Amino acid sequence: MQHKPKALFFDVFGTLTDWHSSISQALSARLTPLYGALDYGAMATSWRGRYQPSMEPIRQGDRSFVPLDQLHQENLKHVILAHGLPDLDDNLCRELAMAWRYLTPWPDVVAGLDALRQSFLLAPVSNGNVALMVVLARHAGFHFDMILGAEMAQNYKPMPDVYLRSAALIGLLPEECMMVAAHNDDLQAASALGLKTAFFPRLREYGPNQQTDLCAQGNYDLVADDLLDLAQQLLV
Amino acid sequence: MQHKPKALFFDVFGTLTDWHSSISQALSARLTPLYGALDYGAMATSWRGRYQPSMEPIRQGDRSFVPLDQLHQENLKHVILAHGLPDLDDNLCRELAMAWRYLTPWPDVVAGLDALRQSFLLAPVSNGNVALMVVLARHAGFHFDMILGAEMAQNYKPMPDVYLRSAALIGLLPEECMMVAAHNDDLQAASALGLKTAFFPRLREYGPNQQTDLCAQGNYDLVADDLLDLAQQLLV
Repeated sequence: MQHKPKALFFDVFGTLTDWHSSISQALSARLTPLYGALDYGAMATSWRGRYQPSMEPIRQGDRSFVPLDQLHQENLKHVILAHGLPDLDDNLCRELAMAWRYLTPWPDVVAGLDALRQSFLLAPVSNGNVALMVVLARHAGFHFDMILGAEMAQNYKPMPDVYLRSAALIGLLPEECMMVAAHNDDLQAASALGLKTAFFPRLREYGPNQQTDLCAQGNYDLVADDLLDLAQQLLV
Repeated sequence: MQHKPKALFFDVFGTLTDWHSSISQALSARLTPLYGALDYGAMATSWRGRYQPSMEPIRQGDRSFVPLDQLHQENLKHVILAHGLPDLDDNLCRELAMAWRYLTPWPDVVAGLDALRQSFLLAPVSNGNVALMVVLARHAGFHFDMILGAEMAQNYKPMPDVYLRSAALIGLLPEECMMVAAHNDDLQAASALGLKTAFFPRLREYGPNQQTDLCAQGNYDLVADDLLDLAQQLLV
């Protein structure tokens, strides 16, 4: 890398946090009394499976922007029906959507961010809305300089606006920012816009038997084992 | 106060930082070689004097939103000409405008914010743009959860949008947020929208002989001596 970035932009769901375990546990805790012992890990995967398709009408301009909190609620209702279960009460649905604010970080993340913070501006560039991300950062112990991402651009990754508006808001050129993610589609979109890119895999993001994003599939500026390894490579 | 707020919103220029001393010093350091020994404290006051009038066309809808960095540059050019001095080089003008990113905090602020952070979400709701505020927060040692304020609403305080958009983005009702400022006009605007309000004076914000905002002129939820005193009152 010829010039180091000034700011690091982070994907959050999967890259910094273990949503599959956290959401499986939250579903199990609240729904077992209602529905009995089901495969709540599979339900978490189904819920996340509706994530990308639910954003597509907004990316296409067929629907106005709504924050991820709302998509989470709509998607959960859909999943419950698809599992042939009785409809969820609106309050419980809202409460369960809030579980995305209390995800557990992967074990390398807090120390990795603290190390990187000495030399770089740090911001999430996530599809999560600001209110979600503020609470998640407090819960997980992430110390960011600013919450950037989808809500700032009123659009969802990987649409160009999200990366470009995030860079502009923090006062930097795209090439002064590095997108950090465990997802190839995110990094390919960022790279095409001139941002620097860093990949590390999260082999258990989807639980066991994960099939996607097992390795870097692009010409990234940096490939690491995890966030601590990334910090070690960037801080030399 | 019947219910405590969940988030504290801070005015920054004057309330958290001593802009008059910092800007006087920056002007003196860079302009004395060009213009000789002038009253750079008075020039800092003139520069700040153009602050409110330069936002007025944007508030009125006669001009599209531009970030404060740009207004600072335009206003400095105006002040230089008004002082009968030769026009400033554009690069030097841009460099001097960046001095607003490196203001010195008042001595009670870092400890006050750290104490308040234990119980409240903290965000600046300033007319400063995001890029300015991110650098200022790093420089001054302010640890915020999120940068809110003018740029989020594409308008300037005391327009209602700025307060309401800030509350909405962080996912709270106006009454769950408390505006903290050393300026009565800021607090009166916030109070009219249902935000809680806290005042403390900064008697030397404008240097010696200050005439405005010497005391609370409104029915605020809390009046304190400074930010440490505010923390003590809020954290009981």
